[in-house]
Amino acid sequence: MKVTACMLIIGDEILSGRTQDKNLQVLAKRLNEKGVQLSHVRVIPDDEEIIISTLNDVRKAYDYVFTTGGIGPTHDDITSETVAKALGLEWGIHQEAFDLLQAYYAKTDLPFNESCQKMAKTPKGAKLLDNPVSVAPGFVVENIFVMAGVPSIMEVMLDFALPLLKGGAVVFSKSMSCNLGEGTVAETLSAFQTEYKDVSIGSYPIFQVNNMGLHLVLRSSDESKLQELYDKLFVKLTEMGGKPEEVAL
Amino acid sequence: MKVTACMLIIGDEILSGRTQDKNLQVLAKRLNEKGVQLSHVRVIPDDEEIIISTLNDVRKAYDYVFTTGGIGPTHDDITSETVAKALGLEWGIHQEAFDLLQAYYAKTDLPFNESCQKMAKTPKGAKLLDNPVSVAPGFVVENIFVMAGVPSIMEVMLDFALPLLKGGAVVFSKSMSCNLGEGTVAETLSAFQTEYKDVSIGSYPIFQVNNMGLHLVLRSSDESKLQELYDKLFVKLTEMGGKPEEVAL
Repeated sequence: MKVTACMLIIGDEILSGRTQDKNLQVLAKRLNEKGVQLSHVRVIPDDEEIIISTLNDVRKAYDYVFTTGGIGPTHDDITSETVAKALGLEWGIHQEAFDLLQAYYAKTDLPFNESCQKMAKTPKGAKLLDNPVSVAPGFVVENIFVMAGVPSIMEVMLDFALPLLKGGAVVFSKSMSCNLGEGTVAETLSAFQTEYKDVSIGSYPIFQVNNMGLHLVLRSSDESKLQELYDKLFVKLTEMGGKPEEVAL
Repeated sequence: MKVTACMLIIGDEILSGRTQDKNLQVLAKRLNEKGVQLSHVRVIPDDEEIIISTLNDVRKAYDYVFTTGGIGPTHDDITSETVAKALGLEWGIHQEAFDLLQAYYAKTDLPFNESCQKMAKTPKGAKLLDNPVSVAPGFVVENIFVMAGVPSIMEVMLDFALPLLKGGAVVFSKSMSCNLGEGTVAETLSAFQTEYKDVSIGSYPIFQVNNMGLHLVLRSSDESKLQELYDKLFVKLTEMGGKPEEVAL
């Protein structure tokens, strides 16, 4: 069973190049551990119409949708309210989130004003994703997980999100590097790929001083087929005059 | 005039989390210098059907489309042929690319076999984007720029792509940090955003030891409005007890 996820990275700051996204890679790896495959990612601006149409494009096409960004207190944080609109749900105070934030602000000299209270609002029926880092929670509603864009906060919310997922087959992978060029081994790889349909062979060139060659990544949910192909490839590349080496992933 | 671009990051290795994409940020910044706004990004797998449907979704919606990844010699490099299919164009040897690659391989002990010759194929009518790094070129066909996924090669192809673009208004930006919380200034920012519709105000929290506050990024194609709002915000945040500081972008 293949279980799929789509990620929506919401934020003008990613599209302008100001900020380098770091959440995609973390999400991909952690989902994979749970047997959920990240199949599609979109980066979109903080724009209500675009967020709504994108959510409605993807939420039925994938088992899970994960959003990052746009859940703070300022005018450009519109993800939470927009998710409610996309789903046709009421958007309002989530009492548990409100209590958490109120208790936090009471211990500081910061005002718990309307802008801050916005962070306690969710689509009706949402379940919170806790945020021990900076209190304001994410949430899950239907199959949509709404998380912060700040990587340290996104990661902790993901810790709370992962146990809620129903995973499929875990994908195993093995990797080797070899000092042969991609062009030299392309036909060999192609033949193996035809023979082993259940193992995907990814080939990536290495361009480094005194280190030209390729990097192969084998991925499959069938661990024994994966090992079998890995071993055959290792032998074949050696026969072709190469020096394959296992690479830890 | 707003000129828009869409980026398609093509590669299983990005979606699996194996590889961190570094091309988005570079493309975004360089396009911005040319007055072209990166408006949308998708990360999709090396899958013919998905690449074709995605290309056909986006190539009419944006002025330019940039793809990265999938133009090497191996079985998983299907971007070039797939772009031809999406556009209904023939795919075959581009003589200029063939000559470049043939001359290169003649100087090495590597075979110029069918797999390597694949890198000389483009959709009919494509114009090459040179690749001084590793010879095999990218290309542009209609409004689609097809580039390598390896960052050093993508960057050099981009050098050849940028002069071909017709840009719109350049977007200027200024940035400041301030030791006030996002919640504290949210209403102020919102009021300024309402007053200055042509300047976008992005607000991003700072969570660092002994450094809590926010980072504001103002962006506009109207440089004098941008400066005016920047100055007003600087004064206002100071009046509110904050210590704003200009940040170089």
